[in-house]
Amino acid sequence: MKDPLDHHMDKESFRRHGHAVIDWIADFLDDRVDGLPVMSEVEPGEIRSLLPDSPPEQGERFEDMLADIDRIVVPGLTNWQNPNWHGYFPANISGPAILGDLLSSGMGVQGMLWSTSPACTEIETHVLDWMAELLDLPKCFRSVPGPGCGVIQDTASSSSFVTLLTARERATDWKSNQHGLAGVDERLVAYTSNQAHSSIAKAAKMAGIGEANLRTIEVDESFAMRPSSLRKAIESDIAEGMIPCYVCATVGTTSSVAIDPVAEIARVTKEHGVWLHVDAAFAGSAAVCPEHRGMHDGLEDADSYTFNPHKWLFTNFDCNCTWVRDREPLIRSLTVMPEYLKNAATDSGSVIDYRDWQVPLGRRFRALKLWFVLRHYGAEGLRSLIRHHVALAQLFEELVEAHPMLEISVPRALSLVCFHHVDGDDATKRMLEGCNRTGRMFMSHTRLGERYVARMSIGQSRVDRHHVESAWKIIDEQARNA
Amino acid sequence: MKDPLDHHMDKESFRRHGHAVIDWIADFLDDRVDGLPVMSEVEPGEIRSLLPDSPPEQGERFEDMLADIDRIVVPGLTNWQNPNWHGYFPANISGPAILGDLLSSGMGVQGMLWSTSPACTEIETHVLDWMAELLDLPKCFRSVPGPGCGVIQDTASSSSFVTLLTARERATDWKSNQHGLAGVDERLVAYTSNQAHSSIAKAAKMAGIGEANLRTIEVDESFAMRPSSLRKAIESDIAEGMIPCYVCATVGTTSSVAIDPVAEIARVTKEHGVWLHVDAAFAGSAAVCPEHRGMHDGLEDADSYTFNPHKWLFTNFDCNCTWVRDREPLIRSLTVMPEYLKNAATDSGSVIDYRDWQVPLGRRFRALKLWFVLRHYGAEGLRSLIRHHVALAQLFEELVEAHPMLEISVPRALSLVCFHHVDGDDATKRMLEGCNRTGRMFMSHTRLGERYVARMSIGQSRVDRHHVESAWKIIDEQARNA
Repeated sequence: MKDPLDHHMDKESFRRHGHAVIDWIADFLDDRVDGLPVMSEVEPGEIRSLLPDSPPEQGERFEDMLADIDRIVVPGLTNWQNPNWHGYFPANISGPAILGDLLSSGMGVQGMLWSTSPACTEIETHVLDWMAELLDLPKCFRSVPGPGCGVIQDTASSSSFVTLLTARERATDWKSNQHGLAGVDERLVAYTSNQAHSSIAKAAKMAGIGEANLRTIEVDESFAMRPSSLRKAIESDIAEGMIPCYVCATVGTTSSVAIDPVAEIARVTKEHGVWLHVDAAFAGSAAVCPEHRGMHDGLEDADSYTFNPHKWLFTNFDCNCTWVRDREPLIRSLTVMPEYLKNAATDSGSVIDYRDWQVPLGRRFRALKLWFVLRHYGAEGLRSLIRHHVALAQLFEELVEAHPMLEISVPRALSLVCFHHVDGDDATKRMLEGCNRTGRMFMSHTRLGERYVARMSIGQSRVDRHHVESAWKIIDEQARNA
Repeated sequence: MKDPLDHHMDKESFRRHGHAVIDWIADFLDDRVDGLPVMSEVEPGEIRSLLPDSPPEQGERFEDMLADIDRIVVPGLTNWQNPNWHGYFPANISGPAILGDLLSSGMGVQGMLWSTSPACTEIETHVLDWMAELLDLPKCFRSVPGPGCGVIQDTASSSSFVTLLTARERATDWKSNQHGLAGVDERLVAYTSNQAHSSIAKAAKMAGIGEANLRTIEVDESFAMRPSSLRKAIESDIAEGMIPCYVCATVGTTSSVAIDPVAEIARVTKEHGVWLHVDAAFAGSAAVCPEHRGMHDGLEDADSYTFNPHKWLFTNFDCNCTWVRDREPLIRSLTVMPEYLKNAATDSGSVIDYRDWQVPLGRRFRALKLWFVLRHYGAEGLRSLIRHHVALAQLFEELVEAHPMLEISVPRALSLVCFHHVDGDDATKRMLEGCNRTGRMFMSHTRLGERYVARMSIGQSRVDRHHVESAWKIIDEQARNA
């Protein structure tokens, strides 16, 4: 009988197959993905139909598995790494991030507690201080001297959720965790703009606050929250005996990268003792450049701040950075301490146990990929690439402005251009679908007010002038035929 | 001025550095990790003190970054991949899982919607059907013909949380998401055993139900939930006007791998229309072997089931598998549909959009690593390794039984042996700490009833008889000196 341990992949096989996978990725990203359709062209069920009904009884050869990547998987990819990707926001990856994450896989440690891998915790805390410096975030968010601190979450959705939970708990005198919300006499209320990401509504639902108790505050003509309307809503809710607990301001909305006026919003939240969370999921990365830091004015009065290096900062998903100005309320709201997790380091009170900062217990060594990205590019490289993307978006904006059948829907913000066809929504939609059907580019859409608009989101890692120009040729043709 | 795109790692550099990282991992796992201290020996702050205060302005050489892995990171690792790791539960990795995940990094796709990478969704659904077959789970959980289906979550904590949210919403006539819990007259109650994982209490807190409304049901002498006590608690709560909404049964508790009697518990939950979630986070993997499937008796009456291939099934963290017998209530509870995510495939109703099954919006192509694990090992390889671990635990149990100063605390379950020193808690603690201080092994502890016990958890990917024997020598010596 075969030794059980012989079922593992042996060292030399791992080395050989590992090199093959690295080479596969190098070829894919440099030579292949640009030529693949941006959106996958398969029909629902097509990929599944290529898979055997049952799992194999005997192990298979790695070569066959790798061949199936080309045969089965690649046709079913929508290629976010194709530089003709102009949809949603980018989900950028990079060489250093891939290799940092690979090292994390190879070490296979769990970072739930400081003691279960001190490097995992300490490098995370440190790199988030670095990142705060790089974005020039207010000093209150840095871990030294504290009590502020950063943490890596999976996504901005989770960041909004855990900060909302903390705000909920604080607003109920630290009792909702224990007794639930059914025991709270006054209704809790949260606030965000009507342009905020759907995850805020999802967080209000999950936290038991209820979507009906999330006020979606109206916006101005730039789609930014009106602080005066926020104030009115908060004061009216207080007058009716409700408890305002949480405001989420958005720096760079998903639809149009609108920037809520954080400083003015913070004046309202401070006055009423309401938690202010600032969600800069996409736009935050731009603050590596001094010329884009104005969007963060007022941030020193926020309770928490978040952005996603996994969007525009060349760090593989998942990598969300969240900072709080005071770690104590967050930890107090999320802590669990069963006997089997007790340890001397935690007891000493001198370490961070990140399990108490998030929904899951377990955690991967995600700081490695971020550390590698910051070191590989340096501040200089990151600024250079962000400026390159913004310049390409400026170029695109000028092309749209000069086109007889297209109009800018709202002034460009950073690297996103929202535009529409002069003949109205149906024409815009026909144009957009025509562009995407070519397979040679992809844009997504949104609605701004009542208007259906196309979103040209420029920022894929390897996008260059000729990609924007070739997209423009397609758009021009589709606009004329729409 | 340097071309912005030149800041990226070029293809040949990626290939070269990638090969170096693969070789580093091969050496680390095969030649180095066994000789490293199992628990890191650094003091708090030691790792941070090795890092520069500020992020670099210019990019650095990859060779220097990789050298810092050895200089800075490795001393700060607690080595879950050292085969002398007998703490907590294993967090196993494997060659095929590392390479599957590496491919996922290299493709860099987002699986939030079917349309944003059909292969990511379809392979996940399919592989979870495979896994259900491999564990011989009840057919109700398979996606074909449905309405059951599987999904990959990050951890069992998230699995418990999203199923509790669904139960909460169902028990409030689908109104708590909209109106929150403050509007619900009757108090919701959830149930689990007093041995359940801390994540259940955390879920009750996060969901706004409150820890005080989580009943921790008493256990029998094997530390398994007493169904008669569960029934009494539910009936008493109903009599007092409360609404029982959720029971979490544990198949393999964290402390001692106690198995709650699912079939008897299901009789109670069915009678009262309460959601039954079964958490087999660790133990579930053993069901690849027919001789261990008895623990799943009654599972056909559960509403949801979860286990973690990232513990004992050689699949890198994070990889939790969750199944529901009906996907509709889960999706209904977690769905969000802003304009910018609308697409034709979703509209057609013929595809799964996994964003509606989880807390975050974004998702990584995690199915690849699980697909590779199932194909590399085959059912045969997985069974062989699980049996190997259980046999080693049996061997260890016999050694403890024959030892004059040690006693088994509770009969061995699967690969976990709980034991204590005959001289009492202090002696057990001294023995445990003495063992761990050697750096040549690691066990963790728990309390069973009032007793402090050592947990010898055998199941690291590469553990073999000689590792158990060398641990035994250390334990024997420490027990005699305790």
